[in-house]
Amino acid sequence: MQEIDLIIAGAKVLLLDARNIHLENGAVAVNADKIVAVDYTEKITKQYKARKTITANDSLIMPGFVNCHTHAAMTCFRGIADDLELMDWLNNYIFPAEAKNVNKELAYWGSLLGAAEMIKSGTTTFCDMYIFEDETAHAAKTAGMRCLAGEVLFDFPSPNFKTIAEGIAYTEMLIEKWKDDPLVNIIIEPHALYTCSEPLLTEIKKLAEDYHLPIGLHLLENAAEKKQLDEKLGKDTVSFLKDIGYLNERLIAFHCVYLSGKDINLFADHGCKVVHNPASNMKLASGVAPVPEMLKAGVTVGLGTDGCASNNNLDMIKEMSTAAKLHKVARLDPTVTDAQTVVRMATIEGAKTLGMEKSVGSLEIGKKADIIVIGLNKPHLTPLYSEYSHLVYAMSGADVDTVIINGKVVMENRQLLTIDEEEAMHKVREIAVKVKQSIQK
Amino acid sequence: MQEIDLIIAGAKVLLLDARNIHLENGAVAVNADKIVAVDYTEKITKQYKARKTITANDSLIMPGFVNCHTHAAMTCFRGIADDLELMDWLNNYIFPAEAKNVNKELAYWGSLLGAAEMIKSGTTTFCDMYIFEDETAHAAKTAGMRCLAGEVLFDFPSPNFKTIAEGIAYTEMLIEKWKDDPLVNIIIEPHALYTCSEPLLTEIKKLAEDYHLPIGLHLLENAAEKKQLDEKLGKDTVSFLKDIGYLNERLIAFHCVYLSGKDINLFADHGCKVVHNPASNMKLASGVAPVPEMLKAGVTVGLGTDGCASNNNLDMIKEMSTAAKLHKVARLDPTVTDAQTVVRMATIEGAKTLGMEKSVGSLEIGKKADIIVIGLNKPHLTPLYSEYSHLVYAMSGADVDTVIINGKVVMENRQLLTIDEEEAMHKVREIAVKVKQSIQK
Repeated sequence: MQEIDLIIAGAKVLLLDARNIHLENGAVAVNADKIVAVDYTEKITKQYKARKTITANDSLIMPGFVNCHTHAAMTCFRGIADDLELMDWLNNYIFPAEAKNVNKELAYWGSLLGAAEMIKSGTTTFCDMYIFEDETAHAAKTAGMRCLAGEVLFDFPSPNFKTIAEGIAYTEMLIEKWKDDPLVNIIIEPHALYTCSEPLLTEIKKLAEDYHLPIGLHLLENAAEKKQLDEKLGKDTVSFLKDIGYLNERLIAFHCVYLSGKDINLFADHGCKVVHNPASNMKLASGVAPVPEMLKAGVTVGLGTDGCASNNNLDMIKEMSTAAKLHKVARLDPTVTDAQTVVRMATIEGAKTLGMEKSVGSLEIGKKADIIVIGLNKPHLTPLYSEYSHLVYAMSGADVDTVIINGKVVMENRQLLTIDEEEAMHKVREIAVKVKQSIQK
Repeated sequence: MQEIDLIIAGAKVLLLDARNIHLENGAVAVNADKIVAVDYTEKITKQYKARKTITANDSLIMPGFVNCHTHAAMTCFRGIADDLELMDWLNNYIFPAEAKNVNKELAYWGSLLGAAEMIKSGTTTFCDMYIFEDETAHAAKTAGMRCLAGEVLFDFPSPNFKTIAEGIAYTEMLIEKWKDDPLVNIIIEPHALYTCSEPLLTEIKKLAEDYHLPIGLHLLENAAEKKQLDEKLGKDTVSFLKDIGYLNERLIAFHCVYLSGKDINLFADHGCKVVHNPASNMKLASGVAPVPEMLKAGVTVGLGTDGCASNNNLDMIKEMSTAAKLHKVARLDPTVTDAQTVVRMATIEGAKTLGMEKSVGSLEIGKKADIIVIGLNKPHLTPLYSEYSHLVYAMSGADVDTVIINGKVVMENRQLLTIDEEEAMHKVREIAVKVKQSIQK
């Protein structure tokens, strides 16, 4: 018998591999940071002897969720202002709150609290865009979460940099500092086309090419942005992106609510990726992204929660439910974005979106052990005809019991093992007192 | 000091009264089945001595949710078929599954499981429509839940009655049997205008008048129904309802996705009530009900989950989140259906919808003690700027710790005290085996 680190056994297993294999009474064998086997429990326990075994009866084992777009530190602004006109919300609440409060401390503790929330709802990888991203990377490291971290870049000063040159230098520092880290990877993130000049975008492109890194940016999130860009650029936004050499397999575009059929074809032809954030798009009244059309055209679409100012949670199970239902009602067609498609968007398709499909997003031999265990023995999950259906239409983040990232158990039976959640909540509450004062003045 | 049965103390309190009073460190005093005081903890504990005290630090106390439209027993069909065309879904899954499986046993255990799920997500009152409703009433009684139960009536035979006369007689039996019950009330429920002939509707109207009971029915749920009714009735559906004397304060219309502006004004003029079921409307691709217009016109609108075949859960917290966001994106206006409005729809406005506002829906002296306690000391609810915002945009059903109905604690620290949930789940799993076989043939 081969001795290994961990077996999670005795549960239903969704692999989310290319064939959508489903096992009854399956198990996953883990050694160090990797999955070494996925099979029936009987076979796994005959072949392997584990130093730790998690017996997951009445449970579902599956890959952890990949949250493809968030601003984790914005947990500090969760619920500070809702139900307002966009410009009122931004100019009178979010921008002043950020200008007066965002610093390294907020970035670290807000991100750590976000990591706690994400782990507790089954997310194992997140792609983040914010200010002081080195703090977010540290928080992810503390939490034991996998993270694709990007400092937001734009033409004007941020709380972290005074000039574009400083912003670029900070990003280069991040790349060098985290280059060999097993959990933290770096992404280059221009904020959006309405906040970044062409020279900045060109500089960013060179940086991404030099380091072979993905570029993530907000794109065509709402109608006002589309109108503004049409006027500013004098051409279609996606044509502009093509002209400046941005359309390639490493482009990750967040939101894409106002992509046209032509844009979608360009995205498909060039292998560009899209992150869909339906809760944020609904709450901010941005619109409905043409996700069924993107999927039909072969565009890779991942799912993201966006930040806590506009959602107001980081729960990928809630996001799946929203994604599945929004497109049905928007098109008066109940067959679009079916449950299995949406679960794949939240796992393996999300991994593809971030360029991480070789390491995460499904339970397959050789992949990193990013695994979640969900308890099924509950009234709201009874009876069980389809795991995919329950994941999307009946489950809650609180149903996630145990989370393993990179082979390490970071939550067991809902107890976080890497984060002192009381401390994180205490720190964020202290920050929130100042945030509240800052918008009342 | 006055001796009473129960004090719930030390928490934030949302009263959901006319002034939306909010207390920091408040308490609710309960004696027998009634609220005797709502005030600051300090004042309550000086005035009253309780036989039982629930100390609810770091929590929110509020009225229980009122689920204004469901089919509780349909938990047995949760997730049996999703993401299908409406007629495919109905004709090949739901109707055969119902025809072959619905009996008293399914009605009882399905409803009891539904009650378990509802209590565990904070619902204290539900309005139900299904077959063998006496079983649902018994399940509610067992669970200690408040219930408005109605046997579904239509022109064709049901598993419970062969003729209209039998269906009417069954309803009269329910009325007599449950007339003095503290928890169970009866509603008269013609299924819909496309399944009930005018003579049946007239007979139902007489029954409702004789017993002074409300009438609940599905109305204009989707475009196909509207088209069918326009053709069948030869006039506007709501004009038809007016002509047959249905437009009054005791009419409770479920869905109302296709109400016109004229219909809304008629509803407002006659005091008719509407139940909004946004998750079901989205999942079945029915459409978006004109809720902001209804609210503006002064129509009372409650919130409902619909049944587990079309949602697939009975969680009013999920329903609030869906309601708040759907109308924003449908109208590209983030200011509609704000958080406080939606929380009121799920509580006091729901109570008004069911004609139960004198007894439930808010925390006020003299009302029935239907109270929930929600734990707030969690990462996904931190920081806390607004309780209404968290209820709608961040919370989960699993955050509900303790539920009191009619003065009785039915769940404490998430332990159900009235229902053996393992037994209910076991029974429903046995039923589900037969259900699955019946649709595979």
